[in-house]
Amino acid sequence: MSPKEFRLMVRKGEYAGPTPGVCGGFVQANLLGIPEEFFPDALDFCRKNPAPCPIIDVSPPGRGGRVRVAEGADLHTDLPGYDVFVEGKHEKRVTDISFLREKNLGFILLGCSFSFEWALLEEGIPVRHIELSRNVPMYRTTIPLVPSGPFRGNMVVSMRPIPASLVAKAVLVTSRYPLAHGAPVHVGYPEGIGISDLSSPDFGDPVPLLEGEIPLFWACGVTPRVVIEESRIPLAVTHRPGHMFVTDLSDEEIRDVNSLLPEG
Amino acid sequence: MSPKEFRLMVRKGEYAGPTPGVCGGFVQANLLGIPEEFFPDALDFCRKNPAPCPIIDVSPPGRGGRVRVAEGADLHTDLPGYDVFVEGKHEKRVTDISFLREKNLGFILLGCSFSFEWALLEEGIPVRHIELSRNVPMYRTTIPLVPSGPFRGNMVVSMRPIPASLVAKAVLVTSRYPLAHGAPVHVGYPEGIGISDLSSPDFGDPVPLLEGEIPLFWACGVTPRVVIEESRIPLAVTHRPGHMFVTDLSDEEIRDVNSLLPEG
Repeated sequence: MSPKEFRLMVRKGEYAGPTPGVCGGFVQANLLGIPEEFFPDALDFCRKNPAPCPIIDVSPPGRGGRVRVAEGADLHTDLPGYDVFVEGKHEKRVTDISFLREKNLGFILLGCSFSFEWALLEEGIPVRHIELSRNVPMYRTTIPLVPSGPFRGNMVVSMRPIPASLVAKAVLVTSRYPLAHGAPVHVGYPEGIGISDLSSPDFGDPVPLLEGEIPLFWACGVTPRVVIEESRIPLAVTHRPGHMFVTDLSDEEIRDVNSLLPEG
Repeated sequence: MSPKEFRLMVRKGEYAGPTPGVCGGFVQANLLGIPEEFFPDALDFCRKNPAPCPIIDVSPPGRGGRVRVAEGADLHTDLPGYDVFVEGKHEKRVTDISFLREKNLGFILLGCSFSFEWALLEEGIPVRHIELSRNVPMYRTTIPLVPSGPFRGNMVVSMRPIPASLVAKAVLVTSRYPLAHGAPVHVGYPEGIGISDLSSPDFGDPVPLLEGEIPLFWACGVTPRVVIEESRIPLAVTHRPGHMFVTDLSDEEIRDVNSLLPEG
């Protein structure tokens, strides 16, 4: 199934499940929907924190949720799940945000780690949570983000255990995907970023760290969710975790590309 | 002083010291001198084990110790120190091997880690043994090398402690210098390659591993020395450790270059 066909199926309400494994080889993206008033700050925040918030495309207020990276798509209807936040608090989970059209939201699509996980597997590097069919473990850290307007907070990271002999290869492979968070931000020392217990992630599922494996920490797409909570802005929307937007871009098209966003 | 001027000074016997810091920015190389009979196997061995034995240039038997990467140089006289091995045992340490000209040795110049250490420092990554003015700690490992003829054995690695937040950067920076051993071969788990005690290196000096630092292990130019011992061939020559051959190549010239050696 092509990404376009998948998005139409989602729009018609025929699919509301998670997207890992859907349309293999095509880039999936996290969604951030922000009211006009706060949109410039949100965009500035993402630009200043490209590791957790790598910008793939932008649909400014007034554009009706259309984007360049997905032909004919509407971001109000083409994701299988949305989370709506009011004053920073999670308000509800829905499968369509057409009821928010009058709010004239702007949208930012952010890269997610699926692209680099596919690349790791292609290079023969095991990915534990995929082997175990679990969600990746994610942790709040003490790594500060560069603030912009009401948007501020600390980075959330995902963790993947890598055998010591494959750590350098895992760094090199993921560094080629800056739009999918790029190289790890921390290697081997969870205490250094405020993680006291690897077996108790703040989001996702725990995975075992085996003898001879090193925990690698990558900037994580859950970061904006935590930032929205901190910001307490009147309204914001994200994708439902695991329920991403499927773009027309292939994973190879974003390899080594630092940003698809035009300047200014 | 230019590399050529330095080599002439060495040739005249006016300098017989170690070369770290000499002719900054120019590539220094390890030396391997092998009799004609075993030269093809030695070359094949280096080609098959490019991480510890990255070939920078070759002076086959009959070439009188001349190389392309150093104008006017003679490898019999232009290194400040040589070690001579007989039947795999260290026989003597000399400052000139002109007395071996009749043996018609072939020479292989191998990249050394000085190039990537310079690059690490340029990128703001601390290098502990340089800070402490010590030799880098080196360890015998259980990582097997690909054998060729009489040449076989396990890899020797060097260790540098890197802060957890800079590990990915250290991997990326050194990966750009494949002729200086490239990216680490192991990260964070010395036991996995047979190292039981980091404070007791097999060669060089111990350096402390501080809280929050991860030990990174790179393939090391001492490997051929250990392989010569194992091989027990009648005669072999290496540079005296720390007393390298200074080439005319700049560090930047070998960045991202996989091998300067022509095919065949």
